[in-house]
Amino acid sequence: VYNLNIGYLYIYYTSYEVILMPEISPQSLEQLVTRIFRAVGASENEAALVARELVTTDRMGIDSHGVLRVPQYVGWVERGQIVPGAPISVVRETPSAAVVDCGHGFGQVSAYKALEIATAKARECSVSCVVTLNCNHVGRAGAYAQRAAEQDLVCLVTVNSPYAGHFVAPWGGREGRLGTNPIAYGVPCDGFPIVGDISTGAIAEGKIKSLMNKAQLLPPDTVLDAQGEITRDPTAFYGPPKGAILPFGGELGHRGYVLGLLVEILGGVLAGNSTDDQTVTGNGICFIAIDPTAFLPLERFKSLVRETVLYLKSSLLAQGYARIFVPGELEFGRSRMVSKIELPPTTWEAIVQVANRLGVTVG
Amino acid sequence: VYNLNIGYLYIYYTSYEVILMPEISPQSLEQLVTRIFRAVGASENEAALVARELVTTDRMGIDSHGVLRVPQYVGWVERGQIVPGAPISVVRETPSAAVVDCGHGFGQVSAYKALEIATAKARECSVSCVVTLNCNHVGRAGAYAQRAAEQDLVCLVTVNSPYAGHFVAPWGGREGRLGTNPIAYGVPCDGFPIVGDISTGAIAEGKIKSLMNKAQLLPPDTVLDAQGEITRDPTAFYGPPKGAILPFGGELGHRGYVLGLLVEILGGVLAGNSTDDQTVTGNGICFIAIDPTAFLPLERFKSLVRETVLYLKSSLLAQGYARIFVPGELEFGRSRMVSKIELPPTTWEAIVQVANRLGVTVG
Repeated sequence: VYNLNIGYLYIYYTSYEVILMPEISPQSLEQLVTRIFRAVGASENEAALVARELVTTDRMGIDSHGVLRVPQYVGWVERGQIVPGAPISVVRETPSAAVVDCGHGFGQVSAYKALEIATAKARECSVSCVVTLNCNHVGRAGAYAQRAAEQDLVCLVTVNSPYAGHFVAPWGGREGRLGTNPIAYGVPCDGFPIVGDISTGAIAEGKIKSLMNKAQLLPPDTVLDAQGEITRDPTAFYGPPKGAILPFGGELGHRGYVLGLLVEILGGVLAGNSTDDQTVTGNGICFIAIDPTAFLPLERFKSLVRETVLYLKSSLLAQGYARIFVPGELEFGRSRMVSKIELPPTTWEAIVQVANRLGVTVG
Repeated sequence: VYNLNIGYLYIYYTSYEVILMPEISPQSLEQLVTRIFRAVGASENEAALVARELVTTDRMGIDSHGVLRVPQYVGWVERGQIVPGAPISVVRETPSAAVVDCGHGFGQVSAYKALEIATAKARECSVSCVVTLNCNHVGRAGAYAQRAAEQDLVCLVTVNSPYAGHFVAPWGGREGRLGTNPIAYGVPCDGFPIVGDISTGAIAEGKIKSLMNKAQLLPPDTVLDAQGEITRDPTAFYGPPKGAILPFGGELGHRGYVLGLLVEILGGVLAGNSTDDQTVTGNGICFIAIDPTAFLPLERFKSLVRETVLYLKSSLLAQGYARIFVPGELEFGRSRMVSKIELPPTTWEAIVQVANRLGVTVG
């Protein structure tokens, strides 16, 4: 699902139009995105945090959650769906649990604040569970799991989507009833932390759109058309009438459905939202943070995790594979290697247009 | 993965040998199994609990974790791997967390005791996390999730397996490094609770054996042979040299691997076990219990879950499906309908042999 072909500068797009994108370092791109968010009213800290998150995600090769989102976020700020500087407030709380109202602030800013509450509670109480209300798009779920793991906590992160993002059909159904509902987790380890981050849908909606634009076929067993038949035609997803994304798992897709529903319960229902409430916007994020020192000394835990990693990697390889990766390793490796960012031309053009409109100088 | 053809009494087996199994009610089977465990030294309570769990699992159609296990458990008791009457002890504890040493008692008995600790802690602290040491085979993970949900708690349950059960290859590898590591969860709901229970491996080892005995092919994308190529020949799994089960997910099997590793971390490493420690026996179970009343009133939570269920079921159906099930619903439905149990002849014969050897009268 990740695009590894990032080693070229001239990018061919539909109808063979050649578009030149300037060579841009991750740092320069981050500064540009920061200035864009500053221009729509974000504080320096907010703007820099959101920019850093989006650019880091691009560096990891996860385009769907990268700077592609900049024009969308700007639009949301302009329409009042994102409220820069919104304070968070805890609306219900016990020593180890909280419902955090994010007041429609930037999703990444809100989610890190909610995570801080979760990690503080886990350190105090060994285990914690924190959910959010009115939280905008949080980006990559694994980012929060990684942060917690870097602070020596085990952390599960689930992210559900509201009605408008219900692209995934329940098993046996043909209409979207759940989001692509990712599950992420972070585990402290000697060396870099383990960061798992998986979607419970068979394909991202953005990926379907991208394949449609390129007139390519969908991967098998990912999408149902409006009649409920498996299709490889991306236009059949958009309709009208609309199709739906299958839960992940192929023949065993009922398992993806089981996991997707768990995410909805944790991130949505536990926060008090009704799944079919069409007025809800943004993501529902749930953090379950666990302090391993409640169970064993930290150094012992991290060293056992390291042993597990080495044991996994000690397996002989399957045909066609060059290496066994631990979750997160590929993304960490990529982000370290990237010295310049190259974006699809539509993404870059949209960012430039937004910058121009806001009077932000590009380059 | 479940056998729905339970409506016949005469069962045809390899080489068309016809074996007659007596018609037996779930109650009679439970009593027989109870008497067998009593005969190897279990107390009445222990024996009845384990018998009830195994027969309930058969009633739900999940043969792999049913009375098929009786001869295995009896063997373990005789060899000292299961110690009837073993007390559990809490070896490390905070108000919301515990490591419970099960002292090699019956897995089901131990796991329910550990669950009681987890549920009590969740009621006291809103969230809890309890892991086990020296816990024998716990059977169906969903059973514990269901029990917690019936007590109005949300509960995640993971079960990992020790070295001897490492049938599942890491993604990119061809040697077993993880168990089939199920993830289960229970959610209180108006009506029956939601009980999800999925394996993170593409196929159960018992299913491979059963297909081999029937000289049938494996489902696609489930097993690697010893050379690391996908195979449909069940004998290629057993070798020698041995093959491995793939993580579940087909083309997206790296996601099954991500989940399987999470289960190993929670159930194994958090309890202080090394993943490649060959002296560890039995399962590692991890309970994460959450009291929804820390977040919203219970009746509101249950009614929102019910709304979610109805919303899922309101989807039009996919081609070839007659109904949208909520996780656990199929199994609850089956277990209510079953008025007599019919077992594969090998299973029944093995139980009768064990009973005879122990001087327990059958029927």
